[in-house]
Amino acid sequence: LSHAQRQSLADALTRRLGWSRQIVRDPPRVEELELPVPRIEPPATLASLCSSEPRDRAAHTYGKSFRDVVRAMRGELNDPPDLVARPRDEADVGALLDWCSSASVAAVPYGGGSSVVGGVSCPVGPGLAGALSIDLGRLDQVLEVDPGSRAARVQAGVLGPSLEDQLRPRGLTLRHFPQSFEHSTVGGWLATRSGGHFATGPTHIDDFVESLRMCSPAGVLETRRLPSSGAGPAPDRLLLGSEGILGVITEAWLRLQDRPCFRSSASVRFADWDHAVSATREVVQAGLAPSNCRLLDRTEAAMSAGGDGIADLLLLGFESADHPVDRPMARALEICRDRGGSLPEPTTSGSSGVDVSVAARSTPTESSSGTTPGDGRSADPAATWRRAFLRAPYVRDALATASVIVETFESACTWSAFPGFHRAVTDAVHRALVEVCGTGIVTCRFTHVYPDGVAPYLSVLAPGRPGSEVSQWDEIKAAASEAIVDHGGTITHHHAVGRVHRPWYDRQRPDLFAGALRAAKASLDPAGILNPGVLIDPR
Amino acid sequence: LSHAQRQSLADALTRRLGWSRQIVRDPPRVEELELPVPRIEPPATLASLCSSEPRDRAAHTYGKSFRDVVRAMRGELNDPPDLVARPRDEADVGALLDWCSSASVAAVPYGGGSSVVGGVSCPVGPGLAGALSIDLGRLDQVLEVDPGSRAARVQAGVLGPSLEDQLRPRGLTLRHFPQSFEHSTVGGWLATRSGGHFATGPTHIDDFVESLRMCSPAGVLETRRLPSSGAGPAPDRLLLGSEGILGVITEAWLRLQDRPCFRSSASVRFADWDHAVSATREVVQAGLAPSNCRLLDRTEAAMSAGGDGIADLLLLGFESADHPVDRPMARALEICRDRGGSLPEPTTSGSSGVDVSVAARSTPTESSSGTTPGDGRSADPAATWRRAFLRAPYVRDALATASVIVETFESACTWSAFPGFHRAVTDAVHRALVEVCGTGIVTCRFTHVYPDGVAPYLSVLAPGRPGSEVSQWDEIKAAASEAIVDHGGTITHHHAVGRVHRPWYDRQRPDLFAGALRAAKASLDPAGILNPGVLIDPR
Repeated sequence: LSHAQRQSLADALTRRLGWSRQIVRDPPRVEELELPVPRIEPPATLASLCSSEPRDRAAHTYGKSFRDVVRAMRGELNDPPDLVARPRDEADVGALLDWCSSASVAAVPYGGGSSVVGGVSCPVGPGLAGALSIDLGRLDQVLEVDPGSRAARVQAGVLGPSLEDQLRPRGLTLRHFPQSFEHSTVGGWLATRSGGHFATGPTHIDDFVESLRMCSPAGVLETRRLPSSGAGPAPDRLLLGSEGILGVITEAWLRLQDRPCFRSSASVRFADWDHAVSATREVVQAGLAPSNCRLLDRTEAAMSAGGDGIADLLLLGFESADHPVDRPMARALEICRDRGGSLPEPTTSGSSGVDVSVAARSTPTESSSGTTPGDGRSADPAATWRRAFLRAPYVRDALATASVIVETFESACTWSAFPGFHRAVTDAVHRALVEVCGTGIVTCRFTHVYPDGVAPYLSVLAPGRPGSEVSQWDEIKAAASEAIVDHGGTITHHHAVGRVHRPWYDRQRPDLFAGALRAAKASLDPAGILNPGVLIDPR
Repeated sequence: LSHAQRQSLADALTRRLGWSRQIVRDPPRVEELELPVPRIEPPATLASLCSSEPRDRAAHTYGKSFRDVVRAMRGELNDPPDLVARPRDEADVGALLDWCSSASVAAVPYGGGSSVVGGVSCPVGPGLAGALSIDLGRLDQVLEVDPGSRAARVQAGVLGPSLEDQLRPRGLTLRHFPQSFEHSTVGGWLATRSGGHFATGPTHIDDFVESLRMCSPAGVLETRRLPSSGAGPAPDRLLLGSEGILGVITEAWLRLQDRPCFRSSASVRFADWDHAVSATREVVQAGLAPSNCRLLDRTEAAMSAGGDGIADLLLLGFESADHPVDRPMARALEICRDRGGSLPEPTTSGSSGVDVSVAARSTPTESSSGTTPGDGRSADPAATWRRAFLRAPYVRDALATASVIVETFESACTWSAFPGFHRAVTDAVHRALVEVCGTGIVTCRFTHVYPDGVAPYLSVLAPGRPGSEVSQWDEIKAAASEAIVDHGGTITHHHAVGRVHRPWYDRQRPDLFAGALRAAKASLDPAGILNPGVLIDPR
């Protein structure tokens, strides 16, 4: 967006929320950046893979969290990688890790760079000669498709849209759509246990893994391609979520699906939040497996789904590639009605309807002028929501240039813990907002639902002070994180731990598991060069 | 069964299969056993927990594999535990492990003793002063139920029927029904990643775990109770399937379900095995989630489901606690018809019908005279199958006294690997049967189905030579295991690795994962006393 567009976006927001005006600033140009001189040089054999160009180093300094975006917009790039490597294949990855091990260079795997938890930023420390960002972008191919088993062998550096483009001619889809989809990779999804767009069923990347291949300093590890196995602790599960500390994931066999052609969607209004939560719980406990089951509180509904601010909104969707889904939708709506929900007519489609995979690939412009016409306040809250969902990261970046604090955090807890969790976390955030920013709003929605619990996702909007946005957000985030861990939540349901969540992850994770993980890491990465500071401290 | 009943069972079998007569023998009485003198004595503080009684030691010498049963029937109990401990609580477990660590005594956790892979047998070795079998049978309580989240905190030593009995007053059920259900424990299920009775959906014990609590020599490890989490590699997944080498699981929070009241079941005949396999694959790939989807080859169908020997049989079932299941059944049958299956009328029930959990708890006698009257050759193949399934382990034990080799093995592979796998494995077993026993049969069924693959379960029946049954079976099993691992299978889908599967597990498991697991074990069990020889060698 242009400067003027960003200013008018910020003005629209501050007017709506009754805040003072926030002034947008412009990000620096690459030529203006002053980066520290690289501390290391690659050996001659690896020089052709490595770049020390300011644009490359700047682009690999941060992920995409609010604190990353603000610092980048300000030109604060104090700890860039000394070098950015772009391996062509697994052998290159191995050679880079060998060099890092022998030269005490931190090796930071980099997929699409969409980490919101500091997972791709480069550590500094006394034991390290420098930091190498290993960008997997050249490992971008679907290598093999097994149509009978509906599985594909995929390289780690494939971005979401490219993966779906390569699968489409085979009539298959992965159907894993994290919000970062456009800018994140298969390897990143696997390393961070990313969560997909769908509320239930196969949606987490973990669900799709048949086997993994990882290049570690100790060598290459490949698990057997199996639909299921009971042979010892699952090897894949040690690598999933290892966030680059055990090795660089280079390939995976992933389970695919047929493209859905039967769809039904509906949105239900609730005057009472507790009833809405109960209805949501009952829908999932009934075993109905909705693809969408996104409860938005009334503020979130008003901000993102054209809501009127007096009703909470449950967005429901069912999809199948094989059979009509009107029956489960009817049963879900019956449950909602029994809990006091106001029902609409569900929108059901046979083989027509919006293909979510296409929608998720659309640019914000395309989707806002897309299949469901309207001004973002159309009668279909689900369509409005989808457009807002796809636009959100772009809006966030634009508002960040006006010092507006726009960030989210997420967790999961049991249904029985949820009421106390929700109260404690929103109270803590409200208190912090008043204290730190004078005002602000926090909204809640559910991203994923389970028979035994729920994944709440909270969004924060507040007027930041130019120059203090990062420390302001850090205070709000710390208050939220304390409340999450104190009230039965996980510090992350699908954003990963990285460096940002470490203090709370350290409290949540059993110490003896940390010891076991540290021991496992020492066996795979004896020099402790892989993504130091993420998840555990190597020694 | 009496001697006479066992002989007439053996005679019926050998007549049917055209073998020579096999003569039954009687197992020894406990008083006749000659057990080696215990090599160790418990310290005074633990003496009241420990027994060196011959009956206790004999009963904890073996699991329930064919080779275990044959050796026990023969009175060959060469390596019994020196002592059997029955801790009252977790503190007792900790004290026992402390003693074992300091005195170099192997500690072998013992749940229900239903291992078929040598998982509870006691190792002998130069570094060990003796072996202690730790029987968790006194930790037999459901400690807490959270009805809103549908979860319960359960002690590890609870046997299957007792667990369901304790949950029934709350209207809830775990619905995890391995064939060992009567004689296996929650802790055993967790340590071995047991597979439940149902073909899809939540059926593996892994699916039901919210959190685990484990007592290791390094201390107690407890994971957080969460419906889902993306915080690092899943800690539970390192403990699930750890088969007692990392610690003794003492408690778990498990996800529960409502009791199903809507049911539909049907069986479909196929004249062509490949078509039957395709139909089965298409049913699961359609996302229909049958609770039963058990394809029996024609020999298996004839042996266990009243089949006529000229058709393969697909047993289909759908169940729900919330809504009718006639539509998914209709769609599944449509798929079967399109693949050449001969359709029956499905049997659908509202809230009546047989409760599988009750059936699974019945004794063989009760179930054969149970809800579906008949002589074991009734018109309902699913009911006949269920009775045969429940009786099978009892029949196996009886036939073993007549030196009949009756044993099973199981695996999983992708759909695309299955035809080659099936051919290679059955060929290898047939060759081994002819070579080792002169004759014999091998049958195949599917226990679990996945969108990307299948879990085949093979049964072997052959006339063994008295005194040589174990070595004969070992030869057949080795031939099968080689073929399994060579043709894309896992050495175990739900029977675990134990000591019996080690050679093939060692080939299947990535070496670097073994190194990581060994390192993790060293951090939790520094003295290497926990179930040595299972999964890995500690040093």
